[in-house]
Amino acid sequence: MRELYELRGSSPEVLFSPYCWRVRLALAHKGLDFVSRSVRFTDKEALAFSGQTLVPVLRDGETTLHDSLAIFRYLDERYPQPALLGGALGESRLRLIDLLIGQDLRPALVRLLLPRVLASIDPSDRDYFRQSREKSLGMSLEAFADRDAGQTQLARALQPLDAMLKGQPWLDGAEPAGADYLIGGFFFWAWTLGEQPWAGDSPSGDWFRRLLAFCEARQGAVRRATND
Amino acid sequence: MRELYELRGSSPEVLFSPYCWRVRLALAHKGLDFVSRSVRFTDKEALAFSGQTLVPVLRDGETTLHDSLAIFRYLDERYPQPALLGGALGESRLRLIDLLIGQDLRPALVRLLLPRVLASIDPSDRDYFRQSREKSLGMSLEAFADRDAGQTQLARALQPLDAMLKGQPWLDGAEPAGADYLIGGFFFWAWTLGEQPWAGDSPSGDWFRRLLAFCEARQGAVRRATND
Repeated sequence: MRELYELRGSSPEVLFSPYCWRVRLALAHKGLDFVSRSVRFTDKEALAFSGQTLVPVLRDGETTLHDSLAIFRYLDERYPQPALLGGALGESRLRLIDLLIGQDLRPALVRLLLPRVLASIDPSDRDYFRQSREKSLGMSLEAFADRDAGQTQLARALQPLDAMLKGQPWLDGAEPAGADYLIGGFFFWAWTLGEQPWAGDSPSGDWFRRLLAFCEARQGAVRRATND
Repeated sequence: MRELYELRGSSPEVLFSPYCWRVRLALAHKGLDFVSRSVRFTDKEALAFSGQTLVPVLRDGETTLHDSLAIFRYLDERYPQPALLGGALGESRLRLIDLLIGQDLRPALVRLLLPRVLASIDPSDRDYFRQSREKSLGMSLEAFADRDAGQTQLARALQPLDAMLKGQPWLDGAEPAGADYLIGGFFFWAWTLGEQPWAGDSPSGDWFRRLLAFCEARQGAVRRATND
């Protein structure tokens, strides 16, 4: 049996963690079924078997893994085709891309999505979430969650993606692969929380719709948080 | 015979174009000899055989190519080992990395290096250089060449590279490959113009020294512009 431990909020159907989405998309890529085990941020004991406290965790038979890129590597070793990483060179470049998009794309979406994350997580997780994130941000969530700054930073972050997607349908070329899921996880984060802060009629907007259709064809309808 | 057409300044020994450095490093990677044909920006007729006006141009027997990444692809097809791109997936990720570093690393270095570029190019190229660059920047070279802004932006641009190079000796992993030369070209640009705007005792500073040693072991001493 294959199990994916992923983050749940107050509604068990709305799955919004970007790192868990990377793994969901990677499992869709490989055509692998799985059972979803959703856990709250503070359900640390539910993940004790993995030797650490963070989702996503993939349990595949006797193998237990955490960290989205480590899971990509395992999936490529155990189920080689179609490839996610493209070998050591491809994996290294994906790690560099992850670091580069950590400068604008991720913080821009944090700025835009924080109020929705707070509204969507389980009430029992709120104190943990606020304390851990305020510690890493070095300021209050309210001070960081600036929509204007977030939109400006997101517009900048989308420029290289739009430039790339003008010339090819997927970030990884003619077919989707690891880079599409690595970056796509952030788009699913916004989408599932009820946001769509990118332009619908842009290359990255078109790409996200293709990625959503790819995922829904394999794993069923993606549930979104309702906007109040 | 294999010829590399690359940019020259007023001194024919100081080669500083970052895109030409990408190809020099790629030729070192493949262990291929070449004859350097250096041309000025405005020597358009010297490149007429290539059907366009920009360096680098590689002529390898009957084959003529321009554009650094197109040259990488040709070199991988004609001389497969050791690989530069790592196939279609690796090439696509390298193009995305190139777009991502175009947001901070390249403009930061433009800001820092513009006065040195102006001082190093051939006097006959100065009007062409100023007009073409001011048109693309949308402002005067002097307005764009802001050292403080350049240093701040460079510090930001180096963060993901330093994070990557803390865990492995080369951007592409255990051995250098395409990503090292793609990004390394920008470092050679600064270095050959007499600048070293990154910290010497940082992971990226250590990496550049390794890359310089790799290059000099294969192609001889790299000449730098003298600082007045």
